[in-house]
Amino acid sequence: MKQPVRVTVTGAAGQICYSLLFRIASGEMLGNDQPVILQLLEITPALKVLEAVKMELNDCAFPLLQDVICTDDAAVAFKGSDYGLMVGAKPRGPGMERGDLLKDNGKIFSTLGKIINDVANPDMKICVVGNPANTNAYILMKNAPNLKPQNITALTRLDHNRAIYQLAAKTEQPMNTVKKLTIWGNHSTTQVPDISHTTVSGKAASEMVDTAWAHAEFMPKVAKRGAEVISARGSSSAASAANGVIDHMRSWVLGTDEGDWVSMAVYSDGSYGIEKGLIYSYPVTCKNGDWTIITDLTNSDFITAKMKESEKELQEERDTCSDLFA
Amino acid sequence: MKQPVRVTVTGAAGQICYSLLFRIASGEMLGNDQPVILQLLEITPALKVLEAVKMELNDCAFPLLQDVICTDDAAVAFKGSDYGLMVGAKPRGPGMERGDLLKDNGKIFSTLGKIINDVANPDMKICVVGNPANTNAYILMKNAPNLKPQNITALTRLDHNRAIYQLAAKTEQPMNTVKKLTIWGNHSTTQVPDISHTTVSGKAASEMVDTAWAHAEFMPKVAKRGAEVISARGSSSAASAANGVIDHMRSWVLGTDEGDWVSMAVYSDGSYGIEKGLIYSYPVTCKNGDWTIITDLTNSDFITAKMKESEKELQEERDTCSDLFA
Repeated sequence: MKQPVRVTVTGAAGQICYSLLFRIASGEMLGNDQPVILQLLEITPALKVLEAVKMELNDCAFPLLQDVICTDDAAVAFKGSDYGLMVGAKPRGPGMERGDLLKDNGKIFSTLGKIINDVANPDMKICVVGNPANTNAYILMKNAPNLKPQNITALTRLDHNRAIYQLAAKTEQPMNTVKKLTIWGNHSTTQVPDISHTTVSGKAASEMVDTAWAHAEFMPKVAKRGAEVISARGSSSAASAANGVIDHMRSWVLGTDEGDWVSMAVYSDGSYGIEKGLIYSYPVTCKNGDWTIITDLTNSDFITAKMKESEKELQEERDTCSDLFA
Repeated sequence: MKQPVRVTVTGAAGQICYSLLFRIASGEMLGNDQPVILQLLEITPALKVLEAVKMELNDCAFPLLQDVICTDDAAVAFKGSDYGLMVGAKPRGPGMERGDLLKDNGKIFSTLGKIINDVANPDMKICVVGNPANTNAYILMKNAPNLKPQNITALTRLDHNRAIYQLAAKTEQPMNTVKKLTIWGNHSTTQVPDISHTTVSGKAASEMVDTAWAHAEFMPKVAKRGAEVISARGSSSAASAANGVIDHMRSWVLGTDEGDWVSMAVYSDGSYGIEKGLIYSYPVTCKNGDWTIITDLTNSDFITAKMKESEKELQEERDTCSDLFA
């Protein structure tokens, strides 16, 4: 049996985590042979509910679950942590400006970044889920210089999976036949769901659907799917977001499938002319715990222009919070 | 790739199913090589929320999930069904007598039993979760004579897992070292959590904890854990109940581990002097999709008396609903 790893989860008493934690503990995220210690962080008023989540985790008798730590102290939650799932964030309240949201969350993520820098495993791998996810990840990175910037990522796998479903439904093909789909950019409505290089059942998607559908229907449908789910469900997507986190981390740690790639928002190396250092969603393959950007794709002028728009939004988000990093 | 199987789930828009469905679709219940079609049943007012659950299931792009059918028509939900997870049941309202609860749920399960009898795969395997689970399963069985009575079971795996945790915590040993624990009887407060034959890290549990603790603390703690979770969480256990269902079905279909057994409420063959035909929780091993009761245990007078009490409760529950079967 492997040595246990420490998985820190923030916002742990919330709805996404109620779907997420049990799947981590069952081995779905890191594999059936990897024992885990869950280190769960919440704000003080949510600790009572978090203790109930811990009771239920214990009541599953998961063979891989070695311990569950519940705390409102980030220095305890991130102590020696190997993996960090940053689910907690301040939601946008009524009448709140986007700039205020950015600043409030920026403060949370700069504080957490400093603590992580001091107490976590320097090889810690992080996935930011709480919105604005890419910019929260950027601020965390700037405040945690001991961590490798390549190990701080943000979630666009939910968008990636949503896009697979839309294309599979349109082409009436099984979802597991959709390969090499890409989400570029920011996890926001400026994201760029791109099927230019995608295959479905071995055929080029571009030969199965027309470009007008891809641009005018598919792209906005994927980008706005979150709002559609909220409207139908009465609350935001939780189980599918949790599933995106499981998929993101599993691909990163255990590798991507041969002949396919996934979308992850990662530290830009300047590929495709995107500003180096931004946390930007790219197509990546993963092996031995490292991701590698697919760098040899040729993009249309339309996709390139959309990618630059999403880059511009990320630059503006960053500039709003520039007081939070040196 | 195997042929897909049809999994019917009732009460599919509720909280237990929000935890359950995504784990079924990911392959945790029936294995990573078994495609599934989910056939989801709800009452008409819940169909809108159920459609939102379907959206999120699609948004996970699960490779094994072939289709999701949402319906308020049981004849559609159980058509050709291979597995039935009967989660939906009428909850006990304020001021409601236990007898009324039994009768209301008895009507639901007699109706569903008749429909299942007509439209499902005659080899269908059923796990009843909705309470009173054992008696609901009994009534369903009596109304579905085309099914094998051995294929109609009720859930006591959640109690089993809760008992493992309590014993592991008391002995300060890892949960995966607790083997051969038993829940006897009814999934109610008369259940009999029994560690007489249990080992922990290879040692007899009876040598590690004293009998007074087992009888006065462990047994009521396990039997009343549901109420404790409700009190802490503000609502009933959902994710841990869903996990019990996953474990129950996985053990049944894919087999139990060598050197261990699990607890399942199954059709009594008269073992241990329990009335033949009652749906009673026993220690069982599973192989090739069949369960076998462990019949060679010697029980203390204390345990035997408790087992008879739980049998008596099941007989009384059955007699309350005797108008619902021939």
